[in-house]
Amino acid sequence: MSAQRIDFQTDPSRYRHWKLKFEGPVARLVMDVDENGGLFDGYQLKLNSYDLGVDIELSDAVQRLRFEHPEVRVVVLESGKDRVFSAGANIRMLAGSTHAHKVNFCKFTNETRNAMEDASRASGQKYLCAIRGTAAGGGYELALACDEIILSDDGNSTVSLPELPLLAVLPGTGGLTRVTDKRKVRRDLADAFCTTEEGIKGKRAVAWRLVDRVVPNSRFEAAVAEATARLAQASDRPQSGKGITLTPLARTFTDDGVVYSSLRVDVDRVARRATLTILGPEEAPPGDAAGLEAQGSQFWPLRLARELDDAICHLRLNERDAGVLIFKSQGHAARVLAYDALLDRSADHWLAREIRLLWKRVLKRVDVTSRSLVTLVEPGSCFAGTLAEFVFAADRSIMLEGTFPGDNRAPAAIVLGPVNFGAYPMPNDLSRLATRFLGEPDALEAARSQMGTEVTAEDAEAAGLVTFAYDHIDWADEVRIFLEERSSFSADGLTGLEANLRFAGPETMETKIFGRLTAWQNWIFQRPNAAGSDGALKRYGSGVKASFDPERT
Amino acid sequence: MSAQRIDFQTDPSRYRHWKLKFEGPVARLVMDVDENGGLFDGYQLKLNSYDLGVDIELSDAVQRLRFEHPEVRVVVLESGKDRVFSAGANIRMLAGSTHAHKVNFCKFTNETRNAMEDASRASGQKYLCAIRGTAAGGGYELALACDEIILSDDGNSTVSLPELPLLAVLPGTGGLTRVTDKRKVRRDLADAFCTTEEGIKGKRAVAWRLVDRVVPNSRFEAAVAEATARLAQASDRPQSGKGITLTPLARTFTDDGVVYSSLRVDVDRVARRATLTILGPEEAPPGDAAGLEAQGSQFWPLRLARELDDAICHLRLNERDAGVLIFKSQGHAARVLAYDALLDRSADHWLAREIRLLWKRVLKRVDVTSRSLVTLVEPGSCFAGTLAEFVFAADRSIMLEGTFPGDNRAPAAIVLGPVNFGAYPMPNDLSRLATRFLGEPDALEAARSQMGTEVTAEDAEAAGLVTFAYDHIDWADEVRIFLEERSSFSADGLTGLEANLRFAGPETMETKIFGRLTAWQNWIFQRPNAAGSDGALKRYGSGVKASFDPERT
Repeated sequence: MSAQRIDFQTDPSRYRHWKLKFEGPVARLVMDVDENGGLFDGYQLKLNSYDLGVDIELSDAVQRLRFEHPEVRVVVLESGKDRVFSAGANIRMLAGSTHAHKVNFCKFTNETRNAMEDASRASGQKYLCAIRGTAAGGGYELALACDEIILSDDGNSTVSLPELPLLAVLPGTGGLTRVTDKRKVRRDLADAFCTTEEGIKGKRAVAWRLVDRVVPNSRFEAAVAEATARLAQASDRPQSGKGITLTPLARTFTDDGVVYSSLRVDVDRVARRATLTILGPEEAPPGDAAGLEAQGSQFWPLRLARELDDAICHLRLNERDAGVLIFKSQGHAARVLAYDALLDRSADHWLAREIRLLWKRVLKRVDVTSRSLVTLVEPGSCFAGTLAEFVFAADRSIMLEGTFPGDNRAPAAIVLGPVNFGAYPMPNDLSRLATRFLGEPDALEAARSQMGTEVTAEDAEAAGLVTFAYDHIDWADEVRIFLEERSSFSADGLTGLEANLRFAGPETMETKIFGRLTAWQNWIFQRPNAAGSDGALKRYGSGVKASFDPERT
Repeated sequence: MSAQRIDFQTDPSRYRHWKLKFEGPVARLVMDVDENGGLFDGYQLKLNSYDLGVDIELSDAVQRLRFEHPEVRVVVLESGKDRVFSAGANIRMLAGSTHAHKVNFCKFTNETRNAMEDASRASGQKYLCAIRGTAAGGGYELALACDEIILSDDGNSTVSLPELPLLAVLPGTGGLTRVTDKRKVRRDLADAFCTTEEGIKGKRAVAWRLVDRVVPNSRFEAAVAEATARLAQASDRPQSGKGITLTPLARTFTDDGVVYSSLRVDVDRVARRATLTILGPEEAPPGDAAGLEAQGSQFWPLRLARELDDAICHLRLNERDAGVLIFKSQGHAARVLAYDALLDRSADHWLAREIRLLWKRVLKRVDVTSRSLVTLVEPGSCFAGTLAEFVFAADRSIMLEGTFPGDNRAPAAIVLGPVNFGAYPMPNDLSRLATRFLGEPDALEAARSQMGTEVTAEDAEAAGLVTFAYDHIDWADEVRIFLEERSSFSADGLTGLEANLRFAGPETMETKIFGRLTAWQNWIFQRPNAAGSDGALKRYGSGVKASFDPERT
């Protein structure tokens, strides 16, 4: 794979692999992958197979459907090819990828599928998957992320998860978890399904709960129309909202980072870390939801959320050695809270809701990022309300007591707002504060009672809102030693440690996908049976069968 | 490591590493590892570090405390060494072990710690950990499995999880999960703790919730006595039960398997599978609990459970290529159900309770065994009640319709009993039938209504109790093709697939430990940063620092 920068920004005018068609409350999202449009050389995207580039477009489409098309209540996902729905992730791409690329590719595709489910559950934009032809592997996993699956009963159309028999890997884009926990396929039938290379079709696919209906081609469109109407009926999308346009991000890549409008990313490649400095709003928010809508994608919270999302994806894929992400902020806490208050007041407005939901997803993307997350709370920062989530998302948060000599700004303070108590659940479906205080419910209530007050370092440390507080005499050394030590640890060990410590308490499909399923897949991606020179991924398509070590671990 | 057979049977007269002392309702379980008593050559078990052999003795002690000492209400776990509680798993042993040995060692040690927690929760035998000296890594993880931890406040005694900074691996014996989910240590403090090689001591250990109390040495024994009395008070152990002796198992190892009194294990090394044939009881059960107690460890359900436990451990460690375990049974269903009924009637009897709880643990050991589990239900089998759990624990269960030509036995039948609906929860805390029918609550109720009736193949398949039913014409080919196909798949891929499909629905600490934590550890155990020739495990103690690839995946 080349070292070219992967860009996560696109828009429909540049799509090579997807078509969007609008029919009032119904959108058709048509997968029609350009064989020659792969992100890297060395493979062709045949049979609607995909690589990261295809998924970046899908992710963009899912996002735009929410912001640009509030009128859309149902998205029909279908194929633009004959006789094939999707062959899943491209195998030659996987075989040629580094371990790190495979893992990060899977993470991003998982996040896109979660975003589809979030659109349905939280935003009333339902997904219907209409399968004509074969839906194999990641193709069927895409269907699994939809609310309903209709399969053509034409003798050719099948669903399958052939990863294990074909490639010696797992259906790792949520497939195993959604089969057992979302569609609740019986475990022995799931086992049979996942070991049957040719897949399942017709009535058996319904009996095994793999799809919701099978319909002959002659009645296929009618069945899709019926399901679409039914799902539209159940949606709570606004009847009259007018979409906003997600305009291109203002960003400049420099040698050492990226400059956005409200975010600066500085990469220190020698020290192997990146600093993300969030810039608070420069102006007060508009007075009401109409003003918010008028600002559209320039509205500060929306602009910042999109910039953060882009920056995190960029760092994951393009700055792989930056093992520590440092979050800082600059600005006025009161102004940040004023934006939060406007969004609170406008909770019934479709756009305000979408902005909050986008923040939820962006913060979850931070949660599952395999980098050490550190938040430094210094004078001049504005970790208040929504931005305070970065203090709680971090593996370690460090706050300055008092001020730096010669700096006449007030001591740093954290200010909690209502959003910190439920608006942004983590993948485990608890707020970051609730997860933090799982063993100390009193501390959670104490934090709630401090809402709106400026909490300075000593109090923040005592209240458990930050990990450590240091005065200016110790600050530089303590922070330096911590960062140097962190960079000296094994990158893999830290990934495993953080994946386990970040999500205490209850589990959800999301934590199962990013915790359990991903970890097993990562393990398998390292094993010679899959990734070795005689392994199934490398041998696929060569005509030579893979050679396996039979030993069970 | 040598290819010698690892034996999971022992008894206190043969212990080299543990001492058991009894003081009425209190037992002292003293860890005093014999440096030269390692299971393999090449390492010394210094500083109360342990290998699988040490843990086999611990597992035996925990088991005997329950069956042989019903009077024991509290077990005090302590060290027999000065200035050290336990240094955890022996590092040279880990560095010299194969990947498969490391993984299976961790699985067994996890099961032993779970058994300690089960003794406390289900059986009223509480564990108090009294730490004087350092409790590092697996040493502290052992403490985490106890109900309470008292730490000496002597300036020397510390608890630590130094795996990541020292060895680039995780605290994989439940450590990370118990820190966040059992002791509910705040996530950022947990992060600080797990990256602090020297550990935490004194008041900070209490403030961070790592231990329950710190006590100066002068008051240490008094504090232990106080906690012991308090825990004993809270226990529901019987006041007057008299223990039974767990006599040595009757077993004979042959070239191709093991013959027990109620179980036969046949290993086919060419086909890479093992068949476990369970033999039903030869006689009717005694009439009451007194009769049961009189039979002691010869009581058929107890005898069989111990034999199965030994066989599963043996197959895991000593027959690593046997990728498929086939469960069969022979005997009379009515007689199996009669034993179940006696245990149901005797639910208040301490020994009956212990036998049921042992079966729960043995079946969980089956659930987390990384082999494909297949149950074949044929004429002459007795998959009824407790034994029917093997039909539901299997990844695939296959049942014969009708009879084989020339065999005049009745067609195979499955008979459900009350035990199938809650007595034996899986690690996810649901019964196997409830897990199976997560998406079909009606099917679960239908199964309940069939309790006590003989369900033959067609009905069992229709009711979802077995995966597939075949008549005698298809049977041999279908079973052969399935087994051959299974053996042709990647062993690693199957391990990951089965680990994900077996546990749908809710998660518990156990599923988190065996699912998430174990999977991340397995991944890390494969990574060069830990296991490579320049990795931390290999370099430990060499004086040369490990060399790490900084790339984050």
